[in-house]
Amino acid sequence: MLKEHFKRIMGDEFDESSLVLHPAIQKFAKGQVLVEAGKLQSNFYFLKQGIVEVTIPGKKEWIYDFFFPNSVIGAYSSLLTGRPSRIAITAIEDCEVEAYAWFELKKQYATSIGANQLGRFITEQIFLLHSKREIDFLSKSAEQRYIELLQFQPDLILKIPVHRIARYLGIHPESLSRIRKKMNS
Amino acid sequence: MLKEHFKRIMGDEFDESSLVLHPAIQKFAKGQVLVEAGKLQSNFYFLKQGIVEVTIPGKKEWIYDFFFPNSVIGAYSSLLTGRPSRIAITAIEDCEVEAYAWFELKKQYATSIGANQLGRFITEQIFLLHSKREIDFLSKSAEQRYIELLQFQPDLILKIPVHRIARYLGIHPESLSRIRKKMNS
Repeated sequence: MLKEHFKRIMGDEFDESSLVLHPAIQKFAKGQVLVEAGKLQSNFYFLKQGIVEVTIPGKKEWIYDFFFPNSVIGAYSSLLTGRPSRIAITAIEDCEVEAYAWFELKKQYATSIGANQLGRFITEQIFLLHSKREIDFLSKSAEQRYIELLQFQPDLILKIPVHRIARYLGIHPESLSRIRKKMNS
Repeated sequence: MLKEHFKRIMGDEFDESSLVLHPAIQKFAKGQVLVEAGKLQSNFYFLKQGIVEVTIPGKKEWIYDFFFPNSVIGAYSSLLTGRPSRIAITAIEDCEVEAYAWFELKKQYATSIGANQLGRFITEQIFLLHSKREIDFLSKSAEQRYIELLQFQPDLILKIPVHRIARYLGIHPESLSRIRKKMNS
């Protein structure tokens, strides 16, 4: 459960008793879409099982990120602004999620300290993820970023196909092969 | 004042009475550094007057953003993680800011709904800014992004020198000249 997960991480910083949420358990088979680009969104999700891929559609489809169990996922910009999502989220393994209605959390922001503590903390984590990724993109080479994936996210390297990792790094699969060969030689 | 500014924007969503902050007024002359890259941070700022530039130092220095009055500025990742800042913030005009001790806000997260409402809201705004910028970078050409600056941030175009706008768009100043000529012809 999302609340229990964040209580473990946040401890006394999260007054979970003042927040009431009613998740629905949903399953998505490998290949199914949780969030469709161009559509308005009303839910966010807590990933219990499986892996999802976040992509940015366009002339050249970008893989923006991968998420593993115990992650909060959703088109957060779209929820916050009420505008259609610019990203898509797809199950790349069979997934089980808790689905939460955004409005149920949002309406409690006016009165519940726990709702605000949770919303703030999750937003901080999402911001840190984006900020790190963005600065890395601007200041590090694809090779450096690949080495850091090996060090800090070995799960990702083990579980995601190489051609998808290349697209995540923003390089051609052949460039990634060259980097891997160079490192193994 | 930061609290008054966000009360105007957030209305009843911000219980400002439960949050106590003690800002210090500081002045930075044009060219002075508010946030030094590589240093631990303890303050964030509310910009009352002037313009600042956020840069990412490196082999090639990137201009990450410009901020105008009524903005919250600071090395937020550094404050959240307790690690040295990866960005620098420099006054590019004479500036006046309210300086806030991060720990003063942070310690109130345990007990004050207003502190959490404000922290959450500011983090949401920062996230939206980053998210838009990042997706724009991945999915739009420099020319498209320049046209959107003209449309949505004409102040930036008027007040920031052309060579800095080019570095903000991530292109060579000559490429920006070409885009501008093409648009004027």
